[in-house]
Amino acid sequence: MTISKKSLQEIGEFGLIDRIKNWMGLPSPEVLRGIGDDVAVIHQGKKALLVTTDILIEDIHFERSWVDPYRLGRKALAVNLSDIAAMGGVPKYFLIAMGLPKNLSLPFVSLLYQGLKAEAKRFQVDLIGGDTSLSQRIMINVCLIGEGISKTLLYRNGAKIGDDLYVSGTLGDSALGLKLLQDKRIKRKPKRLIEKHLLPRPRIELGQALAKNRFASAMIDVSDGLIGDTFHLLRESRVGARIWKECIPLSRSYRKWVQTYSEDPYELAQAGGEDYELLFTASPRKRKEIFSLSRSLQISISRIGEIVKATEGFHFLSKDGESISIDRMGYDHFKSLP
Amino acid sequence: MTISKKSLQEIGEFGLIDRIKNWMGLPSPEVLRGIGDDVAVIHQGKKALLVTTDILIEDIHFERSWVDPYRLGRKALAVNLSDIAAMGGVPKYFLIAMGLPKNLSLPFVSLLYQGLKAEAKRFQVDLIGGDTSLSQRIMINVCLIGEGISKTLLYRNGAKIGDDLYVSGTLGDSALGLKLLQDKRIKRKPKRLIEKHLLPRPRIELGQALAKNRFASAMIDVSDGLIGDTFHLLRESRVGARIWKECIPLSRSYRKWVQTYSEDPYELAQAGGEDYELLFTASPRKRKEIFSLSRSLQISISRIGEIVKATEGFHFLSKDGESISIDRMGYDHFKSLP
Repeated sequence: MTISKKSLQEIGEFGLIDRIKNWMGLPSPEVLRGIGDDVAVIHQGKKALLVTTDILIEDIHFERSWVDPYRLGRKALAVNLSDIAAMGGVPKYFLIAMGLPKNLSLPFVSLLYQGLKAEAKRFQVDLIGGDTSLSQRIMINVCLIGEGISKTLLYRNGAKIGDDLYVSGTLGDSALGLKLLQDKRIKRKPKRLIEKHLLPRPRIELGQALAKNRFASAMIDVSDGLIGDTFHLLRESRVGARIWKECIPLSRSYRKWVQTYSEDPYELAQAGGEDYELLFTASPRKRKEIFSLSRSLQISISRIGEIVKATEGFHFLSKDGESISIDRMGYDHFKSLP
Repeated sequence: MTISKKSLQEIGEFGLIDRIKNWMGLPSPEVLRGIGDDVAVIHQGKKALLVTTDILIEDIHFERSWVDPYRLGRKALAVNLSDIAAMGGVPKYFLIAMGLPKNLSLPFVSLLYQGLKAEAKRFQVDLIGGDTSLSQRIMINVCLIGEGISKTLLYRNGAKIGDDLYVSGTLGDSALGLKLLQDKRIKRKPKRLIEKHLLPRPRIELGQALAKNRFASAMIDVSDGLIGDTFHLLRESRVGARIWKECIPLSRSYRKWVQTYSEDPYELAQAGGEDYELLFTASPRKRKEIFSLSRSLQISISRIGEIVKATEGFHFLSKDGESISIDRMGYDHFKSLP
């Protein structure tokens, strides 16, 4: 085994994941999805066991000065629920490993658990265990277990040439909310954008409906950003895509506040992460059903592009005829952080 | 909800767990064991799904100066395997969430994964996913999933009055190994004790044999120390115990080196944690079978005491007639660390 003397920063998060796959070798045949996927999938006859884990670390993912413990608890669970939502699975149980500084007050920890409880109740999942330890900063690691019907589960790799590309809700709100939270010049912060960052809503119901009715062909949740997550989906489906820039759904509040930071209102909606909306592909024959589902669930769904041959690449097209080719990845933990 | 303004340090880890149980309320009926147990147990017909999680945090659980990444990887998995061993379960899959400082070298991370791989191969478990993030210090959180036959799984609460109390291997080695690692006066450190701390051996095979053959009535792994873990077992079984101090198994290397720190050689073996041996109770009718199992697996097993009525409490008895009543808990993360 040869290992170059590179640092993590040089290879990046995705470079690390590729190496881990290599180091660990192939798992048992009943492991249908493993290292590198957002959710591990274990074959159990007609059903599949789903497992996912996500960490939140103080001063990396949040700052104590602008997060309240209740929302932090909800979000720690929500980001994992979103991973299960993106497969159309049913979340069931979670464990929580926490690192807590010893001088943390009991009311802080209690509010954190009240947040976890509220989110758990809403999505009918049970806390079944965990581990608590002293640590220098707050660290919250949720491991969420769910189940799904093997035949209907959605993966990143099912997109077909000619499929439509959709996204739920609006994009960019969370990234803009984060910018506003960190911006000391702005005193009265717009609540909707801040909330979208602090308290994302996992699209469990939508994900399950898309899977159960077999409307979608591939799905992923938008955690790394539209560019990054579309890339994941395209790479695993071995296809390309065109996204019509002006079709990217933006909220009214976003349109108003994004001007503070950028001339192009779509920039942040394309690159910013943590919206936890669902990005999915579907045959054009399913358009009616999908918009009817959108109405019945009262969740907006926008058709933002189409799947093309891999050789045509990944482009954003503008009304004015501009075509921008995308060849970079989304958010990378080791590379892009200071 | 009233919450006193106490800090975590004041209430301690076990005080926190009791509060979390209260905050979260009762889980679904299929959750057979949940918050507060080392392993969560989910009813799935004749089988049970087992899930456990443990965190290791730099400068809390280990120091980069005296741990090597290979052993750190092995230990991160081993401590979770030990939890499954203590129920007689079969470990199957694990996820790993890591926080890594960005300047960490790739060879360090690679060796960490080589350690994980070696341990995973030895116990035939598959890495199925995880999450990696930047962090200030190294943080490793394993979530291990296993399965067991519902009827034969061993819990902490099955000890009966009159049962024998046994422990595998020897005790105190790990705690003494840690002291020696931290002791700058000692240049040539005794390998066996150091290894017992850095590379504990989960007693998977023994745990499974005790469960499958229904030899034991209750079981726990010795992670918090003999005193602390006996307490857990007694509390949940609602019984008391007598331990014959001189029957506590000590290794030759331990006997030699413990003199550096303590006049009473048994002190550290009673209070020190992280031996990851199995502590179990069994009917006196099983003595022959248990010692025969010990021989066939080539794992030493010592009968160290007996289970008595709860009203008789928990005592250590010495040959010289001394009887020490125990009314304190073992290692507590929030209380006992500096």
